[in-house]
Amino acid sequence: MEVFDRAELLSRKELEQVQLVRLRNVVSQAMRSRLYGSRLKEAGLSPDSFKSLDDVRRIPFTTKDDLRSQYPDGLNTLPTSEMVRMHASSGTTGSPTVIHYTQNDINLWADLMARSMHMVGVRREDVFQNITGYGLFTGGLGLHYGAERLGCLTIPAGPGNTARQLKFMRDFKTTVAHIIPSYALYFGAAMRDSGEDPASLALRVALIGAEPHTEETRRRIEELMDVKAYNSYGLSEMNGPGVAFECVYQNGMHVWEDAYIAEIVHPETLEPLPDGEVGELVMTTLCRQGMPILRYRTKDLTRIIPGECACGRTHRRIDRILGRADDMLIIKGVNIYPMQIEQVLMGFPEVGENYLIVLERENFIDQIRVKVEIREEHFVEDMRVLRDLQKRMVSRLRDELLITPRVDLVQHNSLPKAEGKAQRVQDNREA
Amino acid sequence: MEVFDRAELLSRKELEQVQLVRLRNVVSQAMRSRLYGSRLKEAGLSPDSFKSLDDVRRIPFTTKDDLRSQYPDGLNTLPTSEMVRMHASSGTTGSPTVIHYTQNDINLWADLMARSMHMVGVRREDVFQNITGYGLFTGGLGLHYGAERLGCLTIPAGPGNTARQLKFMRDFKTTVAHIIPSYALYFGAAMRDSGEDPASLALRVALIGAEPHTEETRRRIEELMDVKAYNSYGLSEMNGPGVAFECVYQNGMHVWEDAYIAEIVHPETLEPLPDGEVGELVMTTLCRQGMPILRYRTKDLTRIIPGECACGRTHRRIDRILGRADDMLIIKGVNIYPMQIEQVLMGFPEVGENYLIVLERENFIDQIRVKVEIREEHFVEDMRVLRDLQKRMVSRLRDELLITPRVDLVQHNSLPKAEGKAQRVQDNREA
Repeated sequence: MEVFDRAELLSRKELEQVQLVRLRNVVSQAMRSRLYGSRLKEAGLSPDSFKSLDDVRRIPFTTKDDLRSQYPDGLNTLPTSEMVRMHASSGTTGSPTVIHYTQNDINLWADLMARSMHMVGVRREDVFQNITGYGLFTGGLGLHYGAERLGCLTIPAGPGNTARQLKFMRDFKTTVAHIIPSYALYFGAAMRDSGEDPASLALRVALIGAEPHTEETRRRIEELMDVKAYNSYGLSEMNGPGVAFECVYQNGMHVWEDAYIAEIVHPETLEPLPDGEVGELVMTTLCRQGMPILRYRTKDLTRIIPGECACGRTHRRIDRILGRADDMLIIKGVNIYPMQIEQVLMGFPEVGENYLIVLERENFIDQIRVKVEIREEHFVEDMRVLRDLQKRMVSRLRDELLITPRVDLVQHNSLPKAEGKAQRVQDNREA
Repeated sequence: MEVFDRAELLSRKELEQVQLVRLRNVVSQAMRSRLYGSRLKEAGLSPDSFKSLDDVRRIPFTTKDDLRSQYPDGLNTLPTSEMVRMHASSGTTGSPTVIHYTQNDINLWADLMARSMHMVGVRREDVFQNITGYGLFTGGLGLHYGAERLGCLTIPAGPGNTARQLKFMRDFKTTVAHIIPSYALYFGAAMRDSGEDPASLALRVALIGAEPHTEETRRRIEELMDVKAYNSYGLSEMNGPGVAFECVYQNGMHVWEDAYIAEIVHPETLEPLPDGEVGELVMTTLCRQGMPILRYRTKDLTRIIPGECACGRTHRRIDRILGRADDMLIIKGVNIYPMQIEQVLMGFPEVGENYLIVLERENFIDQIRVKVEIREEHFVEDMRVLRDLQKRMVSRLRDELLITPRVDLVQHNSLPKAEGKAQRVQDNREA
């Protein structure tokens, strides 16, 4: 197996030895920060407390609220003069979540990113078009640095401007694109609408991340753009992208366990869950110097995929993100995740690239309405055909959600388009 | 003198020796490209043709049209697999101007950028807020890499979102900002409007570039933001920013002559002009590997500032950009540069941070109308006061332009705001 980093080849036992040594190191480093200095002491913990990896569970959880209340530097272990980068969440209310990096942290992040991209066949000869926002969002600069480490030709295209993206792809023979899934669906459809044959492009790989999406969405992106699409997982609290990444088998994302500890816990009881069961992902940085974060509750719902991967890497895999613990909708007492709705919709070949979930309140009762764009060729004059399609959708959604949603079939291009992260839920219940 | 690079200390003679050696090298490298391979041969030139620096004048000029007609790779000297970065102009019609960089080119560019920032006192301990767009625009990534080389804490804030920019400046004690002049004027005024006292911020230095601006604009930025503002010059054809930069004496921008040859020519006859005379700046890359460009007509109007700089650096200085050879307006047969108008306006303390030059046609005669925002405290009820101000402006503009423009005084915040490059001229003559 050709790898970017020897760490990919560690046996399970070696990997766990590395994790334990690094866990002790990172605890020692974290204790220099205001937050962990007091919190770990209160918990009676020191680097010596960690005799086995299971002892990681003795560390109290860290939450987004901790990051907010410690703003601007309560998790920093070193003075600002030792930091070389800051990224921040785009949060519009309250204090943003802010991450500080030393040069070592940036280097390690770039290495993990390069390793991830290399795993799906990205090489020095590739032309890499980075179709995501740069700036404070970690996705843009994260993949930029990874591609630079691999020696790819990087086109820092940024988001939007579909015609220009396509022109660059054609003229510079782009082979690899980094693109947000909702924009990939839009881009793929726009490309076909413009008469471009994706098969005539050099584009081979799409790296998709930053938005949870279903397997059906991935397959549709692959079909529309005529590429292999690989799922990427990351969050700025854990550096950014490059935390977990799919291999060519496209069956879950390998967490780089030499750099992180991943746990799955029950989102309410916070008890550990066995492999295979869906729960909240909890992550610990093992190598971060400037701002280590221990047992961070990501709010992302996923599971450890049991068993070994055919690629031979021992780094365990997480499933695609199945939802957010905090974007669960409660409608008529039923828990619903937007991902469930997307999964059903994408099973219909008639469905176009855009949909919107609208929450409404009628006579004090919450209702869910799903507006779905239908592909041009399926939006026929014959109302009976459309009504039949609508009925089938309602029925499949009811089977999945256990409540009956309303479904509106709308014309191609009639829902608001997102060139950034798609806004899939519109809550009109207050109005 | 504390310098980032020993090249800053070269004597004039040493510098010219370095230039001659590098000129021969870059000619040899350039000849590997399609464009220069044939063009230099046709001109009977080879590396050996360059006995003295004056021989640079034997090289035919390169123009923006050459870059366009050679799109996408006619100036490249190496295959794509050797390139690691592409930047492009935002041009909306025709082919964009595209620049390719090898890793050596990126490293050299970052070094020049670091040298420029270091010259005005930026150090490892600084907190650098990069308030410009990233992506294909060279300004964002250019200064980002320079700051990284210096070891500053970089906040890749990107443009816009004034409230958040200010929050970051306050909370992270930003000491250095990179900001486009028109946005700096807007930002400074917005900061004061919000009740923020700039003197209470840690901000010390503003690096301003990417838009030509007057000395009066610089002084106003310095006053509004309570900083030292340093002028930066660059263009993607010559890598991006870091081509020429002001030192602490703020009297012209040192061209890094170990990396570039700068000439000033008459914009029509293309004959060389003596130091001190205003003409078009022509630039040659001396170290570029992937895509050398020889005698590029920048269309920027400036002059070499005669004499030595008090800072002791021998790299010659160019004056601030006095206009663009191609944005000269011809009104009633008179040549007018928008910069001349800005310079007059900024001499009036009553003038706010925004203005617009509108070209109109009335009975087949071109007219020029200048809409000027007046600061809130000067926009008084008494029409006589405003009329007097308007008269004085018309008179001063007539003295400068030799034609009589119309002047509209408008209220604070009534003209369209730019958060990117300001659009200062609106041509309504066709309508």
